[in-house]
Amino acid sequence: MNHAVQGFLAAGIAAGIKKNGELDLGLLVSERPAVAAGVFTKNRVTASCVRLDRERLAASGTCRAIIVNSGNANCCTGEDGMNDAVAMAKAAAGDLGIDEESVLVASTGVIGQKLPVEKVEAAVPGLTRMLSAEEGFDAFARAIMTTDTVPKVVARKGEIGGIAYTITGIAKGAGMIRPDMATMLCFVATDIGIGQDDLGRIVAGANEKSFNRITIDGDTSTNDTLLVLANGMSGAEVRTHDDRAAFSETLETVLVELARMCVRDGEGATKLVKISVVNAASRADARRIADTVANSNLVKTAFFGQDANWGRIIAAMGRAGAEFDPERVDLYFDDVLLVENGRYAGQAAENAATEVLRQPEFVVRIDLKAGTEEEIAWTCDFSIDYVKINADYRS
Amino acid sequence: MNHAVQGFLAAGIAAGIKKNGELDLGLLVSERPAVAAGVFTKNRVTASCVRLDRERLAASGTCRAIIVNSGNANCCTGEDGMNDAVAMAKAAAGDLGIDEESVLVASTGVIGQKLPVEKVEAAVPGLTRMLSAEEGFDAFARAIMTTDTVPKVVARKGEIGGIAYTITGIAKGAGMIRPDMATMLCFVATDIGIGQDDLGRIVAGANEKSFNRITIDGDTSTNDTLLVLANGMSGAEVRTHDDRAAFSETLETVLVELARMCVRDGEGATKLVKISVVNAASRADARRIADTVANSNLVKTAFFGQDANWGRIIAAMGRAGAEFDPERVDLYFDDVLLVENGRYAGQAAENAATEVLRQPEFVVRIDLKAGTEEEIAWTCDFSIDYVKINADYRS
Repeated sequence: MNHAVQGFLAAGIAAGIKKNGELDLGLLVSERPAVAAGVFTKNRVTASCVRLDRERLAASGTCRAIIVNSGNANCCTGEDGMNDAVAMAKAAAGDLGIDEESVLVASTGVIGQKLPVEKVEAAVPGLTRMLSAEEGFDAFARAIMTTDTVPKVVARKGEIGGIAYTITGIAKGAGMIRPDMATMLCFVATDIGIGQDDLGRIVAGANEKSFNRITIDGDTSTNDTLLVLANGMSGAEVRTHDDRAAFSETLETVLVELARMCVRDGEGATKLVKISVVNAASRADARRIADTVANSNLVKTAFFGQDANWGRIIAAMGRAGAEFDPERVDLYFDDVLLVENGRYAGQAAENAATEVLRQPEFVVRIDLKAGTEEEIAWTCDFSIDYVKINADYRS
Repeated sequence: MNHAVQGFLAAGIAAGIKKNGELDLGLLVSERPAVAAGVFTKNRVTASCVRLDRERLAASGTCRAIIVNSGNANCCTGEDGMNDAVAMAKAAAGDLGIDEESVLVASTGVIGQKLPVEKVEAAVPGLTRMLSAEEGFDAFARAIMTTDTVPKVVARKGEIGGIAYTITGIAKGAGMIRPDMATMLCFVATDIGIGQDDLGRIVAGANEKSFNRITIDGDTSTNDTLLVLANGMSGAEVRTHDDRAAFSETLETVLVELARMCVRDGEGATKLVKISVVNAASRADARRIADTVANSNLVKTAFFGQDANWGRIIAAMGRAGAEFDPERVDLYFDDVLLVENGRYAGQAAENAATEVLRQPEFVVRIDLKAGTEEEIAWTCDFSIDYVKINADYRS
């Protein structure tokens, strides 16, 4: 698949931050200053790079390059943390011959250990030499992975007034995933032209419908970052309400697909499950229920066991703090109605539901019959491998 | 150990509700009407027995007997649910020759399947014949177990004006444990004399400091019930403020010990961990942090892996919605200071912390240096066996 976007180059290299010698340093560059928008973790504990990016975005609203390391979160590292984040940006800027303030930084990996910034500095010249318009995106995607098992790149094309533009998004994240206003790491390059305010609003909205609707394990990272760069080099320009709507929809498609890829690749996950809550009294109620069911360990272990244990779903709904009448709830696994008006539909329905649970992907639909609002959440199952991966993560 | 309480009899029997033939029906009887107080689940979805008990307690405030089945939660069973709960009480009342309104009912087990009430009715005569003042408590404790691996009985003695009284508590619960105003199942018999209002207040307070401070998997049951019966037969009578304080403290000791026993016996658990948050700006902040850390899957899998991965603790604190400065936080494993002012204390400290994590029981102390308030939570580690137990629970 061609992931190229006009005026963008990318690369990935092994800088020696990861112990296993895998790619761990990525660089994304725009040939000219790109309008930039970001969404960051709401966690009170934030990595230095998150604070640096917030400052730089607020100051200029544009960006020339993003440098990302995996293997070390550079979080809870005191004054060293900010110095090292600044040094990462400076190393990239020096080699690219651009203003260091125009470089943004992201990190992911273990919290609380000093970033070996000298490894980053030593690797930057080799990294910039490898910059390319096509294969570079795949190398970049691999270079930002931690416990991910597959790189995650999605590209989509759109057009405005007959002029085509491209959006290419790259994400990582398989654990510590319950984004709160943002996500693990996601970087999006587009050659559309757009104003900064428009981009900010559209990115926030698309994030809300994608990364803020997924969970793997209920934990929110200190480093969650979504950055979108728009360099205008396609010639397609967002000017009208319809342009904004069309670009917003295309961006949302890219982010939703990346978000789903993250959940499908969730640590130890064997199943991707969409929790769909319909006919709720309010959107907030629908969201509370979708999120609580999606985060319930008992629901997720039942998915792993391919057990249509609907009682656990109902019990999780009951603690969500939402208004509903348990005796009106209908519950479907794909099209199989297993619970009708709060009552079990019988063994035949259960057998059919169990078949649905054997699939790698299915939908749990919860009809509250309490109103007209709806919301979704994507989650995965909770497997023995999740525990193994996370018991041994640092060793 | 002698668990006898004056004027109380108990028994347990295998009624055939559990497929494996283990004890599954328990009966606790007071020779004379006991003042009763209860705390129940706040889950919006509640079992029929919870609704029945609430009604009966509100109507009379007294109780003669409690009948409990394990293996079936009698929840989400529609009209059958309440009919079956009433029938359970009626069966016990008929055989004991007491008013059926004076019998309370509890159930625990799988949600959504009709209770085989005919098995309860058939077993009651045998059950009442087995009532005894001593061994009966142990049989009762075994009869209310589900995934518990050990029965949980705690007895304590106190005295008022030279007259001794006894409190014996019996609890069950190893999964779906994140009590919200109540707990799994806990029944307490005491021969103290006390007014109903006093008992209600004291039970609510002691519950807050015991069962509401534990978590195993973050899920709240639909059947959580704590019932305390006080029959006054010791002759010790609560009259003064000091009497209330002394009884309250003794009851709290019993409930805290039972709550800790539940966590230690948590599904798949190998470690009992106390999360202690000190010097918080408010009690609510301390509680949010204690609860969020205690419920974090990433923290709990690190405990299982005996990995002093403090970054996960800090990241969980950061999403708790509490006020604190990450750069002032000190974090201890027992007496080992691993993080000082938000910074890693080094390899020697980590080695010592890892030794602490090898123990079956330890304390994580979080000093926020933000005020003078504190709160605790008990949790367990999250093991491979938790997933195995819950993937296969219904099969």
